[in-house]
Amino acid sequence: MNYIGIDLGGINTAAALVSEEGEILKKRSVPTPRTPEGVADVIAEHVSALSEDQPDLAPCIGIGAPGSIDTKKGVIQYWSNLAFRDVPLADMVQQRCGCSAVMENDANCAALGEFVSGAGKGSQSLVVITLGTGIGGGAVLNGRLATGCSGGGLEVGHMVIQHRGRPCTCGRRGCFETYCSATALIREARKAMTTDRDSFLWTLAGEPEKLNGKLVFEAAAAGDETAGRVLEEFLDYLGTGVTNLINVFQPEVFCIGGGLAGAGEQIMAPVRKTVEREVYAGENDLRPRIVRATLGNDAGLIGAAMLPRFRG
Amino acid sequence: MNYIGIDLGGINTAAALVSEEGEILKKRSVPTPRTPEGVADVIAEHVSALSEDQPDLAPCIGIGAPGSIDTKKGVIQYWSNLAFRDVPLADMVQQRCGCSAVMENDANCAALGEFVSGAGKGSQSLVVITLGTGIGGGAVLNGRLATGCSGGGLEVGHMVIQHRGRPCTCGRRGCFETYCSATALIREARKAMTTDRDSFLWTLAGEPEKLNGKLVFEAAAAGDETAGRVLEEFLDYLGTGVTNLINVFQPEVFCIGGGLAGAGEQIMAPVRKTVEREVYAGENDLRPRIVRATLGNDAGLIGAAMLPRFRG
Repeated sequence: MNYIGIDLGGINTAAALVSEEGEILKKRSVPTPRTPEGVADVIAEHVSALSEDQPDLAPCIGIGAPGSIDTKKGVIQYWSNLAFRDVPLADMVQQRCGCSAVMENDANCAALGEFVSGAGKGSQSLVVITLGTGIGGGAVLNGRLATGCSGGGLEVGHMVIQHRGRPCTCGRRGCFETYCSATALIREARKAMTTDRDSFLWTLAGEPEKLNGKLVFEAAAAGDETAGRVLEEFLDYLGTGVTNLINVFQPEVFCIGGGLAGAGEQIMAPVRKTVEREVYAGENDLRPRIVRATLGNDAGLIGAAMLPRFRG
Repeated sequence: MNYIGIDLGGINTAAALVSEEGEILKKRSVPTPRTPEGVADVIAEHVSALSEDQPDLAPCIGIGAPGSIDTKKGVIQYWSNLAFRDVPLADMVQQRCGCSAVMENDANCAALGEFVSGAGKGSQSLVVITLGTGIGGGAVLNGRLATGCSGGGLEVGHMVIQHRGRPCTCGRRGCFETYCSATALIREARKAMTTDRDSFLWTLAGEPEKLNGKLVFEAAAAGDETAGRVLEEFLDYLGTGVTNLINVFQPEVFCIGGGLAGAGEQIMAPVRKTVEREVYAGENDLRPRIVRATLGNDAGLIGAAMLPRFRG
């Protein structure tokens, strides 16, 4: 049986026909309309196009969406980007296509995608974190998507790892994402380069405003001490946050995604080393595999398609 | 249909006949034998006694046990208390009773018990923490028991909330349980009373070695400043750890158990206040109910009985 998944984004609405094994067979994408009716129409178009010549298609599609979702009713309760409020998207899609639809937060869909055919393939449980503007997260436990009751993703970025530490946009102090998001890394590196005019960061970025996460890793790899110091602190906190989540969830696979994961072993090796030293393994001595996310933006699309099978 | 649950402890092995609704109908308890064969015999005896005149009994019993469990195979991999190693208890019980058996870590069973007929009754998800020698935890998410792949409970006590903070027995620094276990509260209060000979703690406890958690709450309630200061810090960290777990799991119900929960509103009210202020609620503004565990030692027994129904 094949499945249809929709990834509703602020810019584009993507859709894919996905096999039982979580492989994308066909993919399409159109700009996201600005009204709820427009969005439902576009999803119906996607479904119609992907259903052609598909005799063995699941009777239910999956939709991943940002914002907060009432997953029981298939309603977008609030999505700031398009100022959607209480949009009964699942019903609107059903009226247009005849097929039922289940909805889920997009971070949770991405975790499910990695579980089915990405970094967690073949496992029974994984946790995914995404290091971006903030830190997002999702988890599959005992083979089922673990969703919170708030309709959002798991807010792993708002776990305090430094009591009374750096102020966070959420109002707390010392949240994981104030130390380990891409935003945090870049902010600290910018601060550091302004006090070290000789840093190689100046050569690479030209000016602090043009600095990005990749350049911090590049400068550190080239031996720049200022970048190295910033990165070392970042990785120290990252190891702490990752070990926390492993102790709490005890997944088979721990998966790191987002732009910073592109740094590869420069980020993965130190995290593995911290986890190896600090994880609470008990007598079993089982340690999760710590790997990079492998599906990129397709993760959300594949996960959305798999929702009817794995949402528990 | 009724169910049989076994709670294997270091001192006693308890058993109960439990209704579909998670009410205990009959209970028995005997001292725990020192050998694997003895333990299996005792469990078989319990099952035989509780099965009498029970026409509609589940064909599978549940066993909660300490230590690390291979839950797939029903094997106690290691239990330090009785030096059990690789004991295939589920098979041994089946040979004696004819009924199959599923096994689970006892902390997870306690969480399941509170979910079915205790503090989480009627909800779809809860997290339970137990403030004792350390901090244990368990979670039910989307109506299924969330178990880690290590065979132990969820190690929520080994979540760092103060990077480079107090040393923990696990080797990390700043773990939740180094600030918020009963052990931690008593240790800090003992330290504080040695530097304040006028503290009411001396009147209550006589000497530091006789101080317990209950007396710290009592002294603080009586207006003792030293006890108040210690308790304030304890509650500050407890609010942080609880908010972390709520952000990460987003349960409908958050449940606090263990001896310290006996302090009632003296512990619950400040925690609720911190969570109310700090939790990442998003647009939904859903906040979990924060409540005391209600089943005490029966939680593990009821949860064990319910394992065949809820392990996901």
